[in-house]
Amino acid sequence: MIPTPPASAAAPVIVIAPDSFKGSLTARQVAEAIGRGILQAIPDARLHFCPIADGGEGTLDAMLHAGGERQTIRLRDARGMQREAPVAILPNGTAVIETAEIVGITDANAMALPVAERSTEGIGDAIRILLDRGVRSFLIALGGSSTNDGGAGMLCALGLKLYDNAGALLPPGPAALQKLARIDASGLDSRLAQATIVGMSDVDNPLCGGNGASAVFGPQKGVLPDQVAVLDRALAHFSDLFEQATGRRAANSAGAGAAGGLGYALLMLGGQLQSGAQTVCDHIGLDAHLQGADWLITGEGRSDTQTLHGKAPFVAGGRARQFGVDSTLLSGAIDQQALPALRQHFTGCFSIVLGPTSLEQAIAQADRLLQDSAEQIAAVWQAGRTRLPR
Amino acid sequence: MIPTPPASAAAPVIVIAPDSFKGSLTARQVAEAIGRGILQAIPDARLHFCPIADGGEGTLDAMLHAGGERQTIRLRDARGMQREAPVAILPNGTAVIETAEIVGITDANAMALPVAERSTEGIGDAIRILLDRGVRSFLIALGGSSTNDGGAGMLCALGLKLYDNAGALLPPGPAALQKLARIDASGLDSRLAQATIVGMSDVDNPLCGGNGASAVFGPQKGVLPDQVAVLDRALAHFSDLFEQATGRRAANSAGAGAAGGLGYALLMLGGQLQSGAQTVCDHIGLDAHLQGADWLITGEGRSDTQTLHGKAPFVAGGRARQFGVDSTLLSGAIDQQALPALRQHFTGCFSIVLGPTSLEQAIAQADRLLQDSAEQIAAVWQAGRTRLPR
Repeated sequence: MIPTPPASAAAPVIVIAPDSFKGSLTARQVAEAIGRGILQAIPDARLHFCPIADGGEGTLDAMLHAGGERQTIRLRDARGMQREAPVAILPNGTAVIETAEIVGITDANAMALPVAERSTEGIGDAIRILLDRGVRSFLIALGGSSTNDGGAGMLCALGLKLYDNAGALLPPGPAALQKLARIDASGLDSRLAQATIVGMSDVDNPLCGGNGASAVFGPQKGVLPDQVAVLDRALAHFSDLFEQATGRRAANSAGAGAAGGLGYALLMLGGQLQSGAQTVCDHIGLDAHLQGADWLITGEGRSDTQTLHGKAPFVAGGRARQFGVDSTLLSGAIDQQALPALRQHFTGCFSIVLGPTSLEQAIAQADRLLQDSAEQIAAVWQAGRTRLPR
Repeated sequence: MIPTPPASAAAPVIVIAPDSFKGSLTARQVAEAIGRGILQAIPDARLHFCPIADGGEGTLDAMLHAGGERQTIRLRDARGMQREAPVAILPNGTAVIETAEIVGITDANAMALPVAERSTEGIGDAIRILLDRGVRSFLIALGGSSTNDGGAGMLCALGLKLYDNAGALLPPGPAALQKLARIDASGLDSRLAQATIVGMSDVDNPLCGGNGASAVFGPQKGVLPDQVAVLDRALAHFSDLFEQATGRRAANSAGAGAAGGLGYALLMLGGQLQSGAQTVCDHIGLDAHLQGADWLITGEGRSDTQTLHGKAPFVAGGRARQFGVDSTLLSGAIDQQALPALRQHFTGCFSIVLGPTSLEQAIAQADRLLQDSAEQIAAVWQAGRTRLPR
């Protein structure tokens, strides 16, 4: 981390709150590169480093950057194989579990299996182990999962039992859900009743149907077109039986379709779903950093109209506006069609590239390009700042 | 042209002084696109449009934008074919002749001939016709020529006579110069003695040798490696005989190698060579626009270390600095290696592109990209401007 120079009367306070550049740099690396660039142009700038995330990959790191303890626990991956994965215990005792770290779509080993064989048991393992350690408040980042099991895996790891019509116990993957005849929810971990569970998600899809998990998010997890309906029916069948067994309902709730239906399972456990980016910004105390700040720089790998639907830079920029702080967006690429809409929310939207180049080149040089472009933008901002309106 | 909004006390004065984006937009088009972008971000900005050039393609247009009259004259192109070409008569009576408009490297018809057959007779035609019209002051923009004739063509069009060893009159192209036995300079237009001739050039190459016109600029005009020495010897032979005939010397002078040796011929006529960009900035009155201005935006198609060797944006930026005005560079592409050096001279160096893209895409969308990027930069500058140092 770059040391913050000593405060001086005229030194501007600049908050650096970018998301990660996926596939290239973590949010913390992005923030550090931007910080180096700013200091090239404004050596006395007082920088606040606030890497952010939106409930997907990098959420754990963004939370931990603001405080808390990283713990490593043993659990099952999406294939059911034992592995280690990090979780965070925040200063207030809340545990953060990142789905992408446990059953993530970037896990090539899991992705080599068909989606029908992948399960979220590891998420249930994490919750159970953390319950054993006394944790009763959970933040579960739902983005970036490889699974489509309706959260059945997590529930089974917490005591749910699935039976076929011969009375034999079934494994929790989507393939087995099709054969489901009866669900016994009586064995669900009783400590869950005292737990607060919040899922971090920015989607409002229901569990099933045309806007459901299988139809909308299945394809990017490797679900072939002719499998979508099969998986969708499996999740519908599972939720029908589960809702009969518990008397609860959640399949049509907004966000039930998040993380292949893991959102549904959290809702069925009495949990709530919240915007990932808002939750991260709350927990890292972004507002306190913005109080009295002069400028916010945010960014992400690629900015388009999706950015305006609750992505982390959009949330950070909105908070900056509430404090009267201008926010500037610095991304790997800006979608030209989306630029007018983005400009309604950001004081300047910039790409890091220096001219025509390939995506591969831009990714390979992202750290240097970020530093360089942040320097240019900071130089112009500082030029305006020292040129008073007449 | 965008109308300048009425002045207001707090309205910033912004000078827009870009070079052309070669192969894409004229300097005037670049300035207009930048102006549209600035007004998106700062609607009350008072814009001064000052397109510039460096003595190459676009010099005539840049001069005319600041005043003067465009005239069309009939003359010979590099092949010796009659054609029409524009010249400018500035308000002070000086004529501007742009080599690129008469024997330009972008003339595909001329480029289809070998360089040994191309000649600068058209430049001489222009001077002679303008002398007939009473002009006695000439500014000749030397950049962008297709020729390598040592200016022999121009001189012959003005009365020089070349003979072979049988006493027969020779045409002026490089091919004929090899057979040259005698030069008669007595017929050179006597009105040239009363004329002021200034060549606009940014190269300091001599006429011949390893740093001469043929060796350095020949290849980009289609001279094959084994022809370089032949052409170089032809120019040396021509200059030897010409200097014997006149008693003058110029072959080793800085800039003699400009425009395939046209610089040499101008020097032999008593002319001087000056920086193209400086001459343009002088004639368009850039300094007067910078007086009291708040910001300069300049630009060019591509910026690299060459930019710092007297290119138009560099000259404009240097003048801005003399007036305490920050200058920002907005180019199609910025060479990453050159960025630290460019940053010594510009308050922010930006590419117009919005992310990884091809050169073709960037050129095709240059107008829109310029407008968009100027808007982003102006938004950040204005944000700084309204955020006073505490």
